Amino acid sequence: MAATGGTTATVVGGSGFAGGELLRLLAGHPGFEVAQATSREYTNKTVGSVHPNLRDLDLRFTPPTDLESVDVLFAAAPHGVAMDHLDEWQAAADTVVDLSADFRLETEAQYSEWYDGHSAPEHLDDAVYALPELSRGDLPGANLIAGGGCNATATILGLLPLQEAGLLDDAHVVVDVKVGSSEGGAGGGPASSHPERSGVVRPYAPTSHRHEAEIEQELGLSVSFTAHAVDMVRGASATCHVFPANGVSGGSEDSSSGVSTGDLWSAYRGTYEHEPFVDVVAGGSGVYRYPEPKAVAGTNGAEVGFELDEDNDRIVAFSAIDNMMKGSAGQAVHAANVALGFEEAAGLDQLGLHPVGSP
Amino acid sequence: MAATGGTTATVVGGSGFAGGELLRLLAGHPGFEVAQATSREYTNKTVGSVHPNLRDLDLRFTPPTDLESVDVLFAAAPHGVAMDHLDEWQAAADTVVDLSADFRLETEAQYSEWYDGHSAPEHLDDAVYALPELSRGDLPGANLIAGGGCNATATILGLLPLQEAGLLDDAHVVVDVKVGSSEGGAGGGPASSHPERSGVVRPYAPTSHRHEAEIEQELGLSVSFTAHAVDMVRGASATCHVFPANGVSGGSEDSSSGVSTGDLWSAYRGTYEHEPFVDVVAGGSGVYRYPEPKAVAGTNGAEVGFELDEDNDRIVAFSAIDNMMKGSAGQAVHAANVALGFEEAAGLDQLGLHPVGSP
Amino acid sequence: MAATGGTTATVVGGSGFAGGELLRLLAGHPGFEVAQATSREYTNKTVGSVHPNLRDLDLRFTPPTDLESVDVLFAAAPHGVAMDHLDEWQAAADTVVDLSADFRLETEAQYSEWYDGHSAPEHLDDAVYALPELSRGDLPGANLIAGGGCNATATILGLLPLQEAGLLDDAHVVVDVKVGSSEGGAGGGPASSHPERSGVVRPYAPTSHRHEAEIEQELGLSVSFTAHAVDMVRGASATCHVFPANGVSGGSEDSSSGVSTGDLWSAYRGTYEHEPFVDVVAGGSGVYRYPEPKAVAGTNGAEVGFELDEDNDRIVAFSAIDNMMKGSAGQAVHAANVALGFEEAAGLDQLGLHPVGSP
Amino acid sequence: MAATGGTTATVVGGSGFAGGELLRLLAGHPGFEVAQATSREYTNKTVGSVHPNLRDLDLRFTPPTDLESVDVLFAAAPHGVAMDHLDEWQAAADTVVDLSADFRLETEAQYSEWYDGHSAPEHLDDAVYALPELSRGDLPGANLIAGGGCNATATILGLLPLQEAGLLDDAHVVVDVKVGSSEGGAGGGPASSHPERSGVVRPYAPTSHRHEAEIEQELGLSVSFTAHAVDMVRGASATCHVFPANGVSGGSEDSSSGVSTGDLWSAYRGTYEHEPFVDVVAGGSGVYRYPEPKAVAGTNGAEVGFELDEDNDRIVAFSAIDNMMKGSAGQAVHAANVALGFEEAAGLDQLGLHPVGSP
Repeated sequence: MAATGGTTATVVGGSGFAGGELLRLLAGHPGFEVAQATSREYTNKTVGSVHPNLRDLDLRFTPPTDLESVDVLFAAAPHGVAMDHLDEWQAAADTVVDLSADFRLETEAQYSEWYDGHSAPEHLDDAVYALPELSRGDLPGANLIAGGGCNATATILGLLPLQEAGLLDDAHVVVDVKVGSSEGGAGGGPASSHPERSGVVRPYAPTSHRHEAEIEQELGLSVSFTAHAVDMVRGASATCHVFPANGVSGGSEDSSSGVSTGDLWSAYRGTYEHEPFVDVVAGGSGVYRYPEPKAVAGTNGAEVGFELDEDNDRIVAFSAIDNMMKGSAGQAVHAANVALGFEEAAGLDQLGLHPVGSP
Repeated sequence: MAATGGTTATVVGGSGFAGGELLRLLAGHPGFEVAQATSREYTNKTVGSVHPNLRDLDLRFTPPTDLESVDVLFAAAPHGVAMDHLDEWQAAADTVVDLSADFRLETEAQYSEWYDGHSAPEHLDDAVYALPELSRGDLPGANLIAGGGCNATATILGLLPLQEAGLLDDAHVVVDVKVGSSEGGAGGGPASSHPERSGVVRPYAPTSHRHEAEIEQELGLSVSFTAHAVDMVRGASATCHVFPANGVSGGSEDSSSGVSTGDLWSAYRGTYEHEPFVDVVAGGSGVYRYPEPKAVAGTNGAEVGFELDEDNDRIVAFSAIDNMMKGSAGQAVHAANVALGFEEAAGLDQLGLHPVGSP
Repeated sequence: MAATGGTTATVVGGSGFAGGELLRLLAGHPGFEVAQATSREYTNKTVGSVHPNLRDLDLRFTPPTDLESVDVLFAAAPHGVAMDHLDEWQAAADTVVDLSADFRLETEAQYSEWYDGHSAPEHLDDAVYALPELSRGDLPGANLIAGGGCNATATILGLLPLQEAGLLDDAHVVVDVKVGSSEGGAGGGPASSHPERSGVVRPYAPTSHRHEAEIEQELGLSVSFTAHAVDMVRGASATCHVFPANGVSGGSEDSSSGVSTGDLWSAYRGTYEHEPFVDVVAGGSGVYRYPEPKAVAGTNGAEVGFELDEDNDRIVAFSAIDNMMKGSAGQAVHAANVALGFEEAAGLDQLGLHPVGSP
Repeated sequence: MAATGGTTATVVGGSGFAGGELLRLLAGHPGFEVAQATSREYTNKTVGSVHPNLRDLDLRFTPPTDLESVDVLFAAAPHGVAMDHLDEWQAAADTVVDLSADFRLETEAQYSEWYDGHSAPEHLDDAVYALPELSRGDLPGANLIAGGGCNATATILGLLPLQEAGLLDDAHVVVDVKVGSSEGGAGGGPASSHPERSGVVRPYAPTSHRHEAEIEQELGLSVSFTAHAVDMVRGASATCHVFPANGVSGGSEDSSSGVSTGDLWSAYRGTYEHEPFVDVVAGGSGVYRYPEPKAVAGTNGAEVGFELDEDNDRIVAFSAIDNMMKGSAGQAVHAANVALGFEEAAGLDQLGLHPVGSP
């Protein structure tokens, strides 16, 4: 835990999975001191009684109604809570970092279309999207930061270089996502029970996933998005199928103008070469030749990569993250680091594991 | 085991996964009597020493060089073996059912393009593709039957109703496949070891998968195919993203001419209502609303289904099979049943399991 | 489904896991015709909407209060339901086969000690324990059959030959059990959610498991029983550590009187050689040298085996079953077959799968 | 990576699983600078090409024959390599930390009994057993450190408080171990392939496991040890069944002299209260009430706990570690820290993950 005198932080919703990750990251962060972790259900219990990895922390949950004054409040509550409590939270903290969907979209109209409306639309303009790869310039000094959705994050990171390179001008951008069970949170109904959820390849959002709204907002194009539950706990993997207007080099279209593998390397390196948390993984030898969630599990890293399909004039772009980290708590801490002027990687320098099962 | 006097059968390559499935199915088949199961490596050992589910069978592996004369020879050998041994096999059996890729494609040119050529191209014309949903009319009396590839089978079954309904006229048919580890066979290198293979979402064939050739041949169109390894042992799941030329009903195109959910029900029911092994699963309540491999594991069943994406003028079609059954040994026995005049479901009436983990 | 005119059966509690297994088995049974499957929660829904493997059955759940008159009523309700409803059930059916714990123990005193008492103790004397390996002689004509507990069944089958051989005279019989998540049923709280339950080796009953009572009753000795949850859905595996009074042959005690491997083969073969559902698996070559749940998943089979530990004068006995089958629904159907005079294996001739993941 | 001027280290066998863990830990260690990672097979390849979690390390494998002079050499080679190469290694490094079994046992006679003899018995006396909970006093200044076996480590940690409290005087100490697939290393034959290894509860060492020798040496008593493979990648869990001579409080023996739960708390706290890497977990509320490998995965932590069985006068003691960390690389770095005077937890302060699947 940070020394007394550090930047103080509260975690609202500390007993959920994302709340636990925030507590893990803040416990190892050189600049933060955790003041409170709130939980209605587990008030007065130790955080270690819920999160066994945090048994050595000397911290008990407090009720969400008794908020101390702190520097930063991280909120990991279900959708709809943040919009109803933002005023309270802003009274307690200079900076609010919300991991829910409540402030990710820019307009009330989007919330009407994709969610059930919004109870605090006057704050939508204040929010900065957390993903530093998109919003690094806007984060310093922000006092309301909205964490991106995990599937949206994976998709955006996979497609961003293609968008910047002008290769997403076609209407048929297919994003086929595979996610782990932690995305469903600590509760979960019958579909999340171990007997029903083990070993699945289950289409859980064939169409109309709410993250489409976020992806469209950030990338400026509509994607054909489908999400599947697969047998892992952590992880989100996006496979993006893209058909560039001029075809691909060596493909059936005019190859002189088509995109080449070299063009893709340039695009991905151009976007990410200075990013501390994004690796480009495309080909090579061995077992791990393309992005996969196992390789980044437990870390704030993202892997992105690609392959060219000459037969079908297609680019296949891959992106893999740990949904609890880069797709949630890690992204939030990363954004807070940028917002508050810490080193970007402070508290986020965990290396992944090898081998690792279904992390 | 069938009574003496039944149709005799040999299984070549009986110690592999597909060979074991053939033995399981033939052991429970009312019309077949297994004469031999061959294995170079396990000659003289009981089949139960390799396949623990077959411990009660009184059968030992014989060398592949000593073939008795039988009615049907099922071959489950690696790619390339069947083309080199077909003459021997045909000398020993009236009917050869080959589960490998050696006789799936129709022309030598295809083998030159997708494989390493073909050593017995003169037999390509004789082969009938095993999948009865495509070739029922051609199977009776066939003496060379070529089992379909598992990923191709899943894809073809998912897309066939759309093709028959004239909805596949667009160039951008994306097929995103997820498969289990049994697809790699009983051997398998480091990538197939449990520590490396557990919990993965691993792009193992981003582009240029050989099954594209088979799909193109059977459906008459090129698909943009990408395959991922996921954490299950049995199962292949294909998610097909299709953009019909006239858009979808309620979509952004002229909705009066676009495809509707009713159109899709008509198409899928039209294609499959009399098929004994294909169920249409699309929506409804509960946990299992769309096709998924768990629901058909251990059976010869296929589940196909769909959802309409108005926002993107897209059809999402799902297909799920057990790669060892409908995608391999079950398909072979089904085809043999049709070829020889048995009841179609003879030996293939196993019900699946619920609950079941990663079967 | 059996032809009209068969023995009629009702499944009470048909939407649970064990109820689903009963429906699966009865659907494939040549002698039974399912009249009703009851479910309070899913009344009027198809059984296939809950059990995806039964989608082809033309059967809807009925309320448990409207029982038709049938020959046999199988009950798969939570503990405590059977004792309260037995009179109703016996009014509706000549034979009641109860899969719960309500009639497994012989005396009211046992229910007071291990459960919360009993509301119908007058029926305890009528009940016959279902496990045919123990009670084959008592089952014909029984009208109340009490299915054994899954862990108890695994343990009893593993130890029975040793007890019959007089090798269990020591006080230190340790039974270390590993079970799959289906044992927790279709509901399940946070501990059964996929994120918390995946990949565990979790002591869930370190001591005082209720199945101890059943084991003691059937074997006549107290066992030191500990159960762990492990990452599979189906399966129960018991490792029994036994220290015979005279030591083992080659061990540190007087080897002339100690038990030998040959003695163990004699004991296990003696007990099981005529049993249709028990295989002795002890050593040999290959991957599957000892009993393991994968090898019997989806079947009514049990594997038992052993190894001699000279260094510690110990017998290690292994036993593996599918908890939903031999440990529950399969055992019930087996017992009903014996009780009603069907062939013992009627409806229970499913072969297991190879390979199979975490079934 | 540590700054130039730190303590230099070489990892021999850097492409294996334990070698990779060493590299991960040393990369995050404040005091070590990695000079070399050797690999015969992957010479000149980046460590990240084998270990995807280490992609950001700027390090390539070198041949094991070209050893630079360093302060510490960590060896993670198969059994038998260290005994043949110790002289070379000691010529290259002041301190050798060997993770294999080659120097764990104290006498040549033990190697003759449990292994295939020893080629450098003259060095056996020099070796210090790495587990600091046992050997903290002997490690400072040691120049040959022998890492404990993973199963032995789990067992020893679980039983040590009972031994120190004089409760292990009975001959019937049963240790039932469950381990993950990483224990088999990066190679692995058919039994380690994903299809065969998934979902198992497989007795892989029913008796005569070599770690018995190590446990006996360190605890001074023979244990009845049986190991099972279960479906996880990392982790070793030992359940120890102990029958104290005077029975347990409340048990069937004279309860006035029997061991009580309070006695056990005193014993475990007495042994471990100052240990930085061992937590006592015994009861409480929530999902994680006893030791389990998931809770310590990816960390150097061990969890130990217990429960009293009055019915059987038994103590059940549990112990859980990550076999790659506390059972291998973490233990080695911990020992090196003690040997060289670093902070004990230097480089070993990783927190575990929650939720986490089968890590």
